[in-house]
Amino acid sequence: MYIVCMDMEGIVTPEIWIEFAEKTGIPEFTRTTRDEPDYDVLMKYRMDLLDKHGYGLKEIQDVIATMEPLPGAKEFLDELRSFCQVVILSDTFTQFAMPLMEKLGYPTLMCNEITVFDESCGEKEGMISGYKLRTNEEGGTKLSAVRALQSTGYDTIAIGDSFNDLAMIRASKSGFLFRSTEEIIAANPDLPALETYEELMAAIKAIV
Amino acid sequence: MYIVCMDMEGIVTPEIWIEFAEKTGIPEFTRTTRDEPDYDVLMKYRMDLLDKHGYGLKEIQDVIATMEPLPGAKEFLDELRSFCQVVILSDTFTQFAMPLMEKLGYPTLMCNEITVFDESCGEKEGMISGYKLRTNEEGGTKLSAVRALQSTGYDTIAIGDSFNDLAMIRASKSGFLFRSTEEIIAANPDLPALETYEELMAAIKAIV
Repeated sequence: MYIVCMDMEGIVTPEIWIEFAEKTGIPEFTRTTRDEPDYDVLMKYRMDLLDKHGYGLKEIQDVIATMEPLPGAKEFLDELRSFCQVVILSDTFTQFAMPLMEKLGYPTLMCNEITVFDESCGEKEGMISGYKLRTNEEGGTKLSAVRALQSTGYDTIAIGDSFNDLAMIRASKSGFLFRSTEEIIAANPDLPALETYEELMAAIKAIV
Repeated sequence: MYIVCMDMEGIVTPEIWIEFAEKTGIPEFTRTTRDEPDYDVLMKYRMDLLDKHGYGLKEIQDVIATMEPLPGAKEFLDELRSFCQVVILSDTFTQFAMPLMEKLGYPTLMCNEITVFDESCGEKEGMISGYKLRTNEEGGTKLSAVRALQSTGYDTIAIGDSFNDLAMIRASKSGFLFRSTEEIIAANPDLPALETYEELMAAIKAIV
């Protein structure tokens, strides 16, 4: 039995931080896991930037509220979920992702949580204080989830676009790069690199 | 971070085999995991009965096509999925459950698969030949799934009504019996036994 494990940003939704960069006019927020493989380095960089500009969780959520899933993503997921189990595996945070999950019909999402300074922290209240990863297992939360699903009898099909998707793709029975960067595609010539939902649906149907 | 692990039949859908018993007028099909704790014994009993009466997968699916989720189940799941991750853990089969999952908005379902005799089997074609469990781990596929989700950093909240739900309920951070039998409730006095979706929603919200 198969379960499809999909990255979220870049696959079925826009990159949240890139949208945030555009809305705030601060181009430094465009750095993503496709540019910086070390997630902790990337998150500290983002939190420093947020601090510098005085942006907290509310400002980020205001931007996310204006976002839509990628064109065709809902239809793709609706069709996929009609014949196959699907889990979204993301390094984003519940507080960011849930409005987008609502627009996608609430597929199951496994991600992380952000933490926010509370009212006891004075003027820091509402600013992002850190983040909680579900697991510190080597290979990250996505690989951990894929291994967990395999341990309960599933073969996984993994789909992603970034450095932090490679481990789950390589640990899966089948895996695809979807709308990835030239650099990642060139460095992983053995992984099929697809660009459209039609290609991806055909590739999954050929397996399932 | 929490993930809610729910049994399907008796919790959000009717018992498929009980409906099948009513539609076919064969009361022997009313036996479920609430009556017979050994799942393999139960399934062999059902397959013998199907054989005896000449019923195959198509006849079972025809009955399932007429079934609806339990009253209020869709609304309960919709609300739950808006603030919490949910997985349905069932010992039923993909081929039986998917039409009901469609009516529930496709929550993620982890279950098993039934196997059917193909055209090379002559007059047996379309009859149920057996079933494939995802895993033979002790405690069953539900406990295996709960442990897998825990291994990737989740605390689980488990909900069920039957013998085969007790292991996942006891292995979870929190657990509830929902519309269970008097026998199971009496034998497990330490487990909260709830009867309505309102009670269940309140209990989950108090935890999350």
